[in-house]
Amino acid sequence: MQIDVLTLFPEMFTGVLGTSIVGKAQQKGLVSFRLVNFREFSGNKHGQVDDMPYGGGGGMVLKAEPIFRAVESLIEPSVEGSGAEEPGKRPRVILMCPQGQRYDQKLAEELAEEDHLIFICGHYEGYDERIREHLVTDEISIGDYVLTGGELASMVIIDSVVRLQPGALGNAQSAVSDSYSTGLLEHPHYTRPAEFRGWTVPDILLSGHHENIEQWRLEEAVRRTLERRPDLLEAEGISEEVKKIAKRLKQQL
Amino acid sequence: MQIDVLTLFPEMFTGVLGTSIVGKAQQKGLVSFRLVNFREFSGNKHGQVDDMPYGGGGGMVLKAEPIFRAVESLIEPSVEGSGAEEPGKRPRVILMCPQGQRYDQKLAEELAEEDHLIFICGHYEGYDERIREHLVTDEISIGDYVLTGGELASMVIIDSVVRLQPGALGNAQSAVSDSYSTGLLEHPHYTRPAEFRGWTVPDILLSGHHENIEQWRLEEAVRRTLERRPDLLEAEGISEEVKKIAKRLKQQL
Repeated sequence: MQIDVLTLFPEMFTGVLGTSIVGKAQQKGLVSFRLVNFREFSGNKHGQVDDMPYGGGGGMVLKAEPIFRAVESLIEPSVEGSGAEEPGKRPRVILMCPQGQRYDQKLAEELAEEDHLIFICGHYEGYDERIREHLVTDEISIGDYVLTGGELASMVIIDSVVRLQPGALGNAQSAVSDSYSTGLLEHPHYTRPAEFRGWTVPDILLSGHHENIEQWRLEEAVRRTLERRPDLLEAEGISEEVKKIAKRLKQQL
Repeated sequence: MQIDVLTLFPEMFTGVLGTSIVGKAQQKGLVSFRLVNFREFSGNKHGQVDDMPYGGGGGMVLKAEPIFRAVESLIEPSVEGSGAEEPGKRPRVILMCPQGQRYDQKLAEELAEEDHLIFICGHYEGYDERIREHLVTDEISIGDYVLTGGELASMVIIDSVVRLQPGALGNAQSAVSDSYSTGLLEHPHYTRPAEFRGWTVPDILLSGHHENIEQWRLEEAVRRTLERRPDLLEAEGISEEVKKIAKRLKQQL
């Protein structure tokens, strides 16, 4: 998988892309990164990449040309018969912006199937509309909060997509992440010591009775989901058993 | 403002905390960061900070003690009469986790008022429940997607909180961010050249007629909000004028 990022601040990425699971995925050859400072594609000696908005008003707007040229430099020329000219083989060109589609795990899984992702990260400037209209395939927002730029948002997406690449996670990591697949929030975890500053581990977890432990964990997961994210219990794929437990717990509240 | 982060991967943060607006806020003395590798508080010579879960099952669980000791090392001892013992003056201790409250701009504004934030970043392990129950004041999630750890999530929060500190943003940046205050998505922006690869800027933006331009921008902002995030138009504080435009545009669809 090839992942490219257009940014005026490539130095923001080094710590994140070189560390932990993303760094290891790169070492294993599962993913390759290119950081492109699109100032190099400004086409003028001042390296200017933004300009005043037509129609007046405050703020600056990122120019179309440097972004177009930087993206085009990252796309292999279409070789006849190579499949590169097929729409399905073209890279996803992703604009990080507050107006975009809300990012979620389903979109992470979709992006994880791609061969080539290109992220465009603006930094408090607006984007010339022609970038959205004629270059970008996806506009994505990671949540309803204001960031100083698209860089952190693209790192969030990269992290969530790279960990889904086959072989990226070790066994210890995948075991924990599996808990998301139930559609519930996680049950409480405890580890040693059994007593810490007078706070003890629930007896049942020390009982060695696996069936009771599983039942307790399921109930606690349903309880937490009910308290914090009842919307998750309305989703598709929630089992009848979970629904029954949720109903009983609701009556107890 | 003091911001501290507990993490096993402090090197992930250097690029982000040192760059752009967050880096400048630090240079201006608006915010001070401490990165704490809580492995130093493991209390054992192997530096072990996680252990197997009570009750069995896969995955590892972060132990309570290293996290408690690391957080306590960051809190000034309560001096009588200093106000440090008042609940309002205690730091917010924030656990990054998928089960947490969904982060949004309202919570960003709330956190921006605090004097001291401490972030606890787990990394694919679970947390011993006693950390949640007896140490943490807030559990926060930045969205419904799975990350390899809490580090990027805490960086997202730090970025959004630091930019709200008075003096953190320059004029050019604040002008653009103001557009969020209308409760609408942004209208399209254009900058030079007026024609790029045959794609032109809308005539109205070149007309010099400010009143018409403002009207066009408002309509385009409403149109985009209607198409992408109709929920925003239902929020409090949306003006009657915007509601009227939305109604008219809906009829045209």
